[in-house]
Amino acid sequence: MTTGAQALISTLRDAGVDVCFANPGTSEMHFVAALDDVPEMRGVLCLFEGVVTGAADGYGRIAGTPAATLLHLGPGMGNGMANLHNARRAHVPLVNVVGDHATYHKQYDAPLESDIEPLAEWTHGWVRRIESGDTIGADAAAAVAAAQATPAQVATLILPADISWSEGGVPAGPAEPETPPAPDAAVVAEIAEILRGGERTVILIGGPATGEAGQLAADRISAATGATALVETFPTRHTRGAGIPHLDRLGYLAEAAMAQLDGVKHLIVAGTGAPVSFFAYPGKPSSLVPEEAQVHTLAGRDVDVVAALEQLAAAVAPDTEPRLAPATTTELPTGDLTVQNWGQVIAALLPENAIISDETNTSGLLLPGVTAGSPRHDVLTLTGGAIGQGLPVSVGAAVAAPDRPVIALQADGSAAYTISALWTMARENLNVTVVLINNHAYAILRLELMRTGAGQGGPKARQLLDLSNPDMDFSKIAAGFGVPSTVATTCEELAEQFSAALAEPGPHLIDARIPPML
Amino acid sequence: MTTGAQALISTLRDAGVDVCFANPGTSEMHFVAALDDVPEMRGVLCLFEGVVTGAADGYGRIAGTPAATLLHLGPGMGNGMANLHNARRAHVPLVNVVGDHATYHKQYDAPLESDIEPLAEWTHGWVRRIESGDTIGADAAAAVAAAQATPAQVATLILPADISWSEGGVPAGPAEPETPPAPDAAVVAEIAEILRGGERTVILIGGPATGEAGQLAADRISAATGATALVETFPTRHTRGAGIPHLDRLGYLAEAAMAQLDGVKHLIVAGTGAPVSFFAYPGKPSSLVPEEAQVHTLAGRDVDVVAALEQLAAAVAPDTEPRLAPATTTELPTGDLTVQNWGQVIAALLPENAIISDETNTSGLLLPGVTAGSPRHDVLTLTGGAIGQGLPVSVGAAVAAPDRPVIALQADGSAAYTISALWTMARENLNVTVVLINNHAYAILRLELMRTGAGQGGPKARQLLDLSNPDMDFSKIAAGFGVPSTVATTCEELAEQFSAALAEPGPHLIDARIPPML
Repeated sequence: MTTGAQALISTLRDAGVDVCFANPGTSEMHFVAALDDVPEMRGVLCLFEGVVTGAADGYGRIAGTPAATLLHLGPGMGNGMANLHNARRAHVPLVNVVGDHATYHKQYDAPLESDIEPLAEWTHGWVRRIESGDTIGADAAAAVAAAQATPAQVATLILPADISWSEGGVPAGPAEPETPPAPDAAVVAEIAEILRGGERTVILIGGPATGEAGQLAADRISAATGATALVETFPTRHTRGAGIPHLDRLGYLAEAAMAQLDGVKHLIVAGTGAPVSFFAYPGKPSSLVPEEAQVHTLAGRDVDVVAALEQLAAAVAPDTEPRLAPATTTELPTGDLTVQNWGQVIAALLPENAIISDETNTSGLLLPGVTAGSPRHDVLTLTGGAIGQGLPVSVGAAVAAPDRPVIALQADGSAAYTISALWTMARENLNVTVVLINNHAYAILRLELMRTGAGQGGPKARQLLDLSNPDMDFSKIAAGFGVPSTVATTCEELAEQFSAALAEPGPHLIDARIPPML
Repeated sequence: MTTGAQALISTLRDAGVDVCFANPGTSEMHFVAALDDVPEMRGVLCLFEGVVTGAADGYGRIAGTPAATLLHLGPGMGNGMANLHNARRAHVPLVNVVGDHATYHKQYDAPLESDIEPLAEWTHGWVRRIESGDTIGADAAAAVAAAQATPAQVATLILPADISWSEGGVPAGPAEPETPPAPDAAVVAEIAEILRGGERTVILIGGPATGEAGQLAADRISAATGATALVETFPTRHTRGAGIPHLDRLGYLAEAAMAQLDGVKHLIVAGTGAPVSFFAYPGKPSSLVPEEAQVHTLAGRDVDVVAALEQLAAAVAPDTEPRLAPATTTELPTGDLTVQNWGQVIAALLPENAIISDETNTSGLLLPGVTAGSPRHDVLTLTGGAIGQGLPVSVGAAVAAPDRPVIALQADGSAAYTISALWTMARENLNVTVVLINNHAYAILRLELMRTGAGQGGPKARQLLDLSNPDMDFSKIAAGFGVPSTVATTCEELAEQFSAALAEPGPHLIDARIPPML
């Protein structure tokens, strides 16, 4: 006989899901026990649900297929929601399994009872409560297919404990994800016509278009027509470096983005939406689209955006070659680490085929510029703005790509949200090098305090944006979680420690101390 | 002129709310700036929203009046939800302030946009979105009153950034919380009659009744009638020790609770509900009420439960004195720390008037027994079952009662969820002694794996319940967050370090390493 949990896990495996990031509780014990019955399913323990969901996000970005999560009831889902929000905005495939009380137990309003559906629906994905062992396999197969829709999404399965533990679970074969509609040829033709018109045009690409193929097409269009191709502000996975066209990202600061879009008559979006300011600021517009510009959607998120770009390139740039970024070498800087020079150390030493999980926020503003000619790499960014994403995403990326070096560039303030991700790196011996940019401040909020017109702030306000008193010593915290760690205060130290960490398997953390920018 | 934020904060202060636990973002910058305009409002920075909400819970338990939170948009609320769930189950007064995008910005679906209402409503409390500066003061006053309803609750104010920053905020005077209905005299008389009948009866008390007055009344009833008085399994604030009647708590394990209730004909509940199993287990009942027992509600959570108990005591025990627990001295045990002896060290050295935040879970099962004759103290427990509560609650308790020693008895697994609470202890120099019971396991889940009938688990299941490989070194983690720390492996070391920590102001952490129970 087969329990519900066994049927669920074997169905997930047959549909290609073979990693489960888990933070289980009592109601998930039969799911946990059933992991031993499906040898191909890997269980990865995380010590907090935000690490679970962030890791599943990182896995999905690199593997292109979903990992599963395992969360404990409504509060466990709650703890995982910030990184599910980031995954939602990243349009990542993710199968989110949330255990619930036994069906007959819910009426008793036990202490951990809560409504899970509203939390699941908050992720704007696909949600199904499993009703019986008869359907559990079909439900799991549908979840995997739904996760891989276009765009990809979070698919949540709510799993009552009694359905999990009862005999009679029926596995199911994989379900096919829906094929996205082909690009609309008329739209492609219309936009080709606009590009031929020669007015100032920006092509803003996002979603799957920020991989190699989409950027090759976008750059050919740009080269042939003079339009500027830009990558959305927070791409899910941005492939870049030597051998890839160098496309700038639209700026995070509205001021910077508006400068990039100044004078544009046509804004063509592909795989993303018209750009908006991350936050509202008194007296400033929310939309970043210049008043004189028309927005044209080449491809929404629900169509094959790479195909659309390739068709457009075929129309307007049939014989144009993309302009691939040349490999450049960066001089190793010397002296004390600063917000200006730390990225040059990374750029100078970046290994081939690295994955960068970037949550450096203000400290990383200069990074894309200096790594443009570094060896080819993928950058995973903070898609939904919910901080605490960088370390978990690097965990998932390292599980998905054990042969690639993963580099987590991580701000101090954001690191504190999901710091126990370090333990999972140690437990799984993941090849992650964490460069912790420790400026002892919520530097971005010091900037935002001024940008919102609230001024410099009085002493109490400044206290709330300050992370000194006490300074966090991330080298000690990392050691406490089992990750070997060092402290760097100079470029030379960072270079030496970064090289050593890359040369040795397993996780390392470098606590790189830099003065705050503001 | 007064901004919305200034009106909000000054209204909160006038209503008696003078602490705000905060983890702000850009949309809350004007609230942060306005803290400097209201000198009596203290801002306490926490590095994660689960610390914010847990601290506000702990504050409310000790102060009896609400603290405010400050959270950043939907994802910030998400991170705070697990401890809001615990606060919900604790019926704690709490004013939860969640910043939102500017009203006109929401339509743009910026990256951090999400629906906050469903998350706020999930806490089963009071929810209001602030619509204008004209009403912001009245909204804040209503929130404080709502938080202090009977039972107390989480009152959430959703604060759009533009209402926060705009001039024209109108403060308001305090609103009166509704007075709870008086106990129903007929019900009191009916229950008095049952008690006089002499059949086996248990009185289960919860909510505000687990303070001194409620327990004095319950014990008098017990002494006069032979009924057994029990405290609910997870009390919000249980006053106990020498000079207080010693009432056992109903067991967490259903097996233990059923033994306590075996043969009971009448179960009288006051300030709590009929007991239910924390989780469902195959083949075991969800309700813990014996089949032959009748449940009688002396007072629901919405009436003055202490008054009801006192009226009942006046009826059945007019001349009966309560049986106060005598002060006892506990011998200091010696030798290696074990799950059996660590609590004796605490009991032997517990200072007068301590507050214990207890999240030791399995490791703390023996604690209530050994501390029954220790100096009077308050115990704050894991009311909603969402782990990661103990350290934040101790932060809030220490802010509410700076003159009382706060002792956080904390399991290792649970500590990892909200570990950055240590930083806030250091920042605020809070008088918290953390005794970290480090058994390198989710010991409770090893137990639950068996109790749910899933057996001992195979190697993969056992891996998911194991916190060794690597062992967490909490002394290093604490040092990294700025809290002085030590390691204890023997009773002698724990005794010496515990005494030293209590003697010195400010936070300390003792990493007390014990072998796992299972």
